[in-house]
Amino acid sequence: MPEITHPATKGRIEELTEQECLTLIAGGGIGRIAYSGRYGQTVLPVNYQLLDNTIVFRTGEDSPLEEDLQTGIRHAEYQVAFEIDEINLTAREGWSVLVQGPAHHIDSDTERTAAHQTGVQPWSGGAKEHYIRVIPTRITGRRILAAR
Amino acid sequence: MPEITHPATKGRIEELTEQECLTLIAGGGIGRIAYSGRYGQTVLPVNYQLLDNTIVFRTGEDSPLEEDLQTGIRHAEYQVAFEIDEINLTAREGWSVLVQGPAHHIDSDTERTAAHQTGVQPWSGGAKEHYIRVIPTRITGRRILAAR
Repeated sequence: MPEITHPATKGRIEELTEQECLTLIAGGGIGRIAYSGRYGQTVLPVNYQLLDNTIVFRTGEDSPLEEDLQTGIRHAEYQVAFEIDEINLTAREGWSVLVQGPAHHIDSDTERTAAHQTGVQPWSGGAKEHYIRVIPTRITGRRILAAR
Repeated sequence: MPEITHPATKGRIEELTEQECLTLIAGGGIGRIAYSGRYGQTVLPVNYQLLDNTIVFRTGEDSPLEEDLQTGIRHAEYQVAFEIDEINLTAREGWSVLVQGPAHHIDSDTERTAAHQTGVQPWSGGAKEHYIRVIPTRITGRRILAAR
């Protein structure tokens, strides 16, 4: 091995509690939906809002994303991950939250109205009238703190 | 269905070429590594640099990430995705790039020196002396343009 030295990285990592994670992501914004799709592992940014501690986002009816997130089996939901972060590279500080769970396709009027009322907007153009909810089975997160 | 109306979203999506994607991500920074890990679909932010059109990032030896990205079979590499984006929610503009391919664990001195010379730093604390390269088999991206 060649001798390689790096400047000491003095920041430290703190694990976040589930409640801390939910507080950090409560405001909505851009998150990233990750799943195993037709071309393998896939990650796409989407605009999201929180609804009763679940993630809600919009996609187009019959869009590739909407189709990829179907198991094809009635009542069996696709397992996905949803990641949100806020990182300041200069300050070397930030946090990231990972929500894992099934992608639930909203199909009842009541649930659709609730999802609509979160005000979640698609971040890209086109009609995106299909709502998907990620129901967390696991919420983890970490905060990076710079050395003082 | 209740009648639901949304403000028209006039932005449009443009698919990016592979070369446009590589140009956009050339500067390095924060990207997100996505894979199927011990707890299912997982996404984590990491600092990356580009090395000969491949993604390079660092992790700790024997860290959960390093372990999860092993197939356990010699010369068989784990399939992952790496996502980079830059999104301006207010302007409703931005782009995202998705790199898919195997996660190659750097183990030769020559390759390790080349990876080191990219100057890639881990974004969080602790010793992170293990370099991983994502060798693209597929590079896709899109740009969102706001209505003018």
